Amino acid sequence: MKVGVVGIGHGLFGKRNDATVQELAFEPFSEAMEDAGITQADIDATIIGSSPEYHKQRSLPGVVTEYIGMNPKPAFLTEAACASGSAALYSAYGFIKAGMFDVVAVIGVQKMMELSTPEILALMGRVGDVQWESNFGTTFPGYYALYARRHIHEYGTTEEQMAQVAIKNHFYGSKNPKARFQKEITLEKIMNSAMVASPLKMFDCCANADGAACLIIASEQRARKLSDTPVWIEGAGSATAPFSVLNRASISTIPSAVEAGRKAYKMASVEPKDIQVADVHDCFTIAEIMAYEDLGFCKKGEGGKFIEEKQSYLGGKTPVNIDGGLKSKGHPVGATGTSMAYEAVKQLRGEAKETQDDGAEIALTHNLGGIGQYCFVNKYRR
Amino acid sequence: MKVGVVGIGHGLFGKRNDATVQELAFEPFSEAMEDAGITQADIDATIIGSSPEYHKQRSLPGVVTEYIGMNPKPAFLTEAACASGSAALYSAYGFIKAGMFDVVAVIGVQKMMELSTPEILALMGRVGDVQWESNFGTTFPGYYALYARRHIHEYGTTEEQMAQVAIKNHFYGSKNPKARFQKEITLEKIMNSAMVASPLKMFDCCANADGAACLIIASEQRARKLSDTPVWIEGAGSATAPFSVLNRASISTIPSAVEAGRKAYKMASVEPKDIQVADVHDCFTIAEIMAYEDLGFCKKGEGGKFIEEKQSYLGGKTPVNIDGGLKSKGHPVGATGTSMAYEAVKQLRGEAKETQDDGAEIALTHNLGGIGQYCFVNKYRR
Repeated sequence: MKVGVVGIGHGLFGKRNDATVQELAFEPFSEAMEDAGITQADIDATIIGSSPEYHKQRSLPGVVTEYIGMNPKPAFLTEAACASGSAALYSAYGFIKAGMFDVVAVIGVQKMMELSTPEILALMGRVGDVQWESNFGTTFPGYYALYARRHIHEYGTTEEQMAQVAIKNHFYGSKNPKARFQKEITLEKIMNSAMVASPLKMFDCCANADGAACLIIASEQRARKLSDTPVWIEGAGSATAPFSVLNRASISTIPSAVEAGRKAYKMASVEPKDIQVADVHDCFTIAEIMAYEDLGFCKKGEGGKFIEEKQSYLGGKTPVNIDGGLKSKGHPVGATGTSMAYEAVKQLRGEAKETQDDGAEIALTHNLGGIGQYCFVNKYRR
Repeated sequence: MKVGVVGIGHGLFGKRNDATVQELAFEPFSEAMEDAGITQADIDATIIGSSPEYHKQRSLPGVVTEYIGMNPKPAFLTEAACASGSAALYSAYGFIKAGMFDVVAVIGVQKMMELSTPEILALMGRVGDVQWESNFGTTFPGYYALYARRHIHEYGTTEEQMAQVAIKNHFYGSKNPKARFQKEITLEKIMNSAMVASPLKMFDCCANADGAACLIIASEQRARKLSDTPVWIEGAGSATAPFSVLNRASISTIPSAVEAGRKAYKMASVEPKDIQVADVHDCFTIAEIMAYEDLGFCKKGEGGKFIEEKQSYLGGKTPVNIDGGLKSKGHPVGATGTSMAYEAVKQLRGEAKETQDDGAEIALTHNLGGIGQYCFVNKYRR
């Protein structure tokens, strides 16, 4: 039995001091219900994707279901660090496949901007191994700087190539009304920005954000009734990698991404070359370059060249993050996976306006958790 | 397609300064694998039930899967406050029903005793609505004291009846080698214990604990191959209630429990009178009395009489918490749901030794999240 997306919604990402976490969740939920032409009465359960530790309000599914009018129906939260939104979608996908529910709302939501940057950095560091790593000072930029250094060492990737990822994503982000940063950026500005963790400079790093995005998914039968343009989740790959980078055979690749990608390609019976548009987890510019390779859009080590040749622009081999990516949208941890899925559905429905990849029929999303400890890769088909 | 439990494990609950959270998780996982006669290679995914905010180590599924040898297979965490373990089981049940996995390890795990009691109380309070309730000082004992006061007011329930719940659960807990408190307690000691939130005294409250329990569940086909004594999950009911008690029509009942119970009875085609043994969420003694009523073991308002008449003892109408309940085992939040399921399986396999309910064929578990914002009710059959 197929599972289809019948409604999508996306709130504004950014500093959202205007909204509580439940209010953030309601925005895209309400938009998605309208999009699907349904009300709460038609929805059987709510699955929240979020990283709980950023919120003063604990147990979000409870407070959200009350606020959005979904009591007494089932709800819980899924967590897989920065891939929590995709974990929620994965879980909801399972419930529908199982025949337990017909229609499920998946809401990725995160409110983190009330915390200071040092507080957020410290919290993020604790997604590293606190026994052997983060207690000794590793932070997220630090981890990804290690990956970048190794990639440079092994493949000759350059800092300018990394900067090109930021240029592309800000270029497309400038056209995305839901992005935190809706403006373009120059090579000069990136190269001259403050060093965060060498070789990563400030504009190699995505920004934190508050935000939420929602998908309403349904069983094949219900999806066909509810929507003239259902988008099918044809592949759902999930994998883990050693939690500690000390235990990985290589740090110039994310093994969970390779494995989740392999599973999703197999399930959907497609190959990398069939992917017409993709959203990948560009928490840092090097992460997007590694994603090109890990997902097979190019050969291992050729990710730098791939962006340099603009193969990930619209019109290139595989357009990537043409919604602006985490880099320009911002990265409200739990919402990111659902934001990616939102973009995939928009592209496949032909509703992406000036960033539309004309005729796209197959889209991919790639959502990493933490420093690659989790990866969820989905394939969507219209 | 049916879903069966083929392996169970249970760590010692208590102050576990001897173990990290991943070590806590490994104990019952290892026991459950041995019980099922399988190794990691036979298991397709790991779902962790836990409340993340108690841990310094964030993103448990990652650190646990690495430690227990389950990379690169999928993993994530589910959260529904004190029902997180049941939410994990519910999610895993869905994956198996969906045919996505054949065998899944469900690990409920919590390490909270490194925190001080005031820290834990404050954290728990934030599972109440921080905007309208917990910011004004409500704590968990405070919430349940409200429920108790109302129950006393409406039904004439007495403090002595509430104390009888503690006496029963400590009596049975004295026989449970995995319980935090393995000793009996007297009415006098309970009635003279320190007032926590009137009418709840210290011995009306369950204790915090570190701990973990694990279930290995499998598809019908695999379960029959792996086990001579599979226990089937025949009903899985889940529901939510208004997050804020301000929004509830009544506080002498937990509406999510009534609804989850109704669903689970329907799925399993059984009635309350058919339940031969039950584990219910006795975070406070009043909670067990309300559970008798909400699950239909007795009429509304007669829960006090039910325990006074020893109907929830072995040999009574419906033996309840004859493993000692949260009250004597302790309540390591995320582990509690899986601990309940462990007991149900032991009873149905006839392995509960001196607390065995002879010939039990149908068991029930009832796991509340928070102040009843979530409830998961499962029915098991041998």
